Amino acid sequence: MNHNELETFIGQFRDEIEQRLPRFLESIDCPDTLKKAMVYSIQAGGKRVRPLLTLAAVKAYRDVKEIDYTVACAVEMVHTYSLIHDDLPAMDDDDYRRGKLTNHKVFGEALAILAGDALLTHAFAMISSLPGVDDRTKITLTQELAHAAGPQGMVGGQTADIEGERRDLSLQELEYIHHHKTGDLLGFAVAAGAILAGSSPEDMKHIRAYAKELGLVFQIKDDILDVEGDSLEMGKSTGSDENKGKVTYPRLLTMAGAKEKLMVHADNAKEHLRALSGTPLILEDFVHYMTERTK
Amino acid sequence: MNHNELETFIGQFRDEIEQRLPRFLESIDCPDTLKKAMVYSIQAGGKRVRPLLTLAAVKAYRDVKEIDYTVACAVEMVHTYSLIHDDLPAMDDDDYRRGKLTNHKVFGEALAILAGDALLTHAFAMISSLPGVDDRTKITLTQELAHAAGPQGMVGGQTADIEGERRDLSLQELEYIHHHKTGDLLGFAVAAGAILAGSSPEDMKHIRAYAKELGLVFQIKDDILDVEGDSLEMGKSTGSDENKGKVTYPRLLTMAGAKEKLMVHADNAKEHLRALSGTPLILEDFVHYMTERTK
Repeated sequence: MNHNELETFIGQFRDEIEQRLPRFLESIDCPDTLKKAMVYSIQAGGKRVRPLLTLAAVKAYRDVKEIDYTVACAVEMVHTYSLIHDDLPAMDDDDYRRGKLTNHKVFGEALAILAGDALLTHAFAMISSLPGVDDRTKITLTQELAHAAGPQGMVGGQTADIEGERRDLSLQELEYIHHHKTGDLLGFAVAAGAILAGSSPEDMKHIRAYAKELGLVFQIKDDILDVEGDSLEMGKSTGSDENKGKVTYPRLLTMAGAKEKLMVHADNAKEHLRALSGTPLILEDFVHYMTERTK
Repeated sequence: MNHNELETFIGQFRDEIEQRLPRFLESIDCPDTLKKAMVYSIQAGGKRVRPLLTLAAVKAYRDVKEIDYTVACAVEMVHTYSLIHDDLPAMDDDDYRRGKLTNHKVFGEALAILAGDALLTHAFAMISSLPGVDDRTKITLTQELAHAAGPQGMVGGQTADIEGERRDLSLQELEYIHHHKTGDLLGFAVAAGAILAGSSPEDMKHIRAYAKELGLVFQIKDDILDVEGDSLEMGKSTGSDENKGKVTYPRLLTMAGAKEKLMVHADNAKEHLRALSGTPLILEDFVHYMTERTK
């Protein structure tokens, strides 16, 4: 698959995801304002990397089915909840995200907290109620989502990130933050696709290892783009990590060192794909996409 | 069972619950401060009504087993998460709960939000990983917890409550808030015990109806105590709803009307218990306990 084919994949499946995301919320019987706040942030754009990775992992084994979108969208809901809470004044205090006002700037802090809580909880409702999926698979997905999003995972990473802002971090501490704050949910996104497609235990090991490496690629690239990226293209100002005094890979390793590390983890990711029984062409192209992206 | 026996039941099982609650958190591999914030609020006391109801519902069918405590404690974690978020400055802005500083007053707002998020997510990890329980039961419990705690349930009720503070409410709106803000999780607590004990579908209908009536009893009594209760005994100042301009049952129905309504729902709750195949002595005594409690 060449680069254009990956773009076709992303273009096609991103549209499918975008169409479905609000639908999973519109049918909920709840107060109007709560639903509006949930839908606002779920429709606030973004690259939809996580749900696309779920579908790409499915694609390594079989064609995408309707049920896969439900899981992909549930992952995006958990991601969106984390962004809403992270943007709150008590946390990162951001007024804008992806060029749009953050949830609490539009709906107020109380509703932003509740909309986040609701998105997280609804993701568990979606995953545990997947129609036509056997109970064992639903339980596995639920357990893994809870682990990836919970205190051992994303919430733990966000806690370490907030605490780390007050002082200098070692490379080890920086990697703890990234493994958990972004890596664990990204890892779940990939693993969930493989689980849905009935991947073997042996394959699952490599899928998880791939996802871990890809998470690092994603994060190192993020740090590099924060220094070298085009602020217009990225929809946020560059140098913002630097200005906040955040520890980043370029700051710890120099820019050349960060770029070298990026390539090492990209190679590791591809290495794990080679060991798979499936045909992970899109997962492989995702490594290139993550390495070369400009926003 | 007379009143003393119920007190014995509560005394015995509350201790068992208190002992286990922090244990389910201490084994989590996460940043220390996050764990401390979670443990602080889970140990901040309270009547433990919800986990006790889970065990009481189990008791209608069989003796309590270790696994039942896990579910009971998971319910208390979801309840505790909701209290931490409700107390935040953006919500009810409370400095004290049960005579202790609220979570954000001790750990700061960011950590309070994250501790709430973590408790909610960890409850799903606990419920979906119950050892020795079949997958169907775990899936049912996960689905019902997500429904009770999510936008159709507790989060929806809390949203309506916050919106209702700005204006006068009808009895119908007040009941919407109570059904969802407190009733749904209370209902899950009872239903979960019956599900664990393998209650029949016919019994489940009555168990759910009982829980709904009991939730109203609980809430009407709360409103009555806010006017007539002893503030020292309750650990919070009485008249606080009145001072906040909150719509309450005594305000909507007069105090005599509220007390009459309390008895109607208490009778309805007992009526549903009579239709059960199990021996719901403790569930019945809970109705008296809820009706007559002084704090």
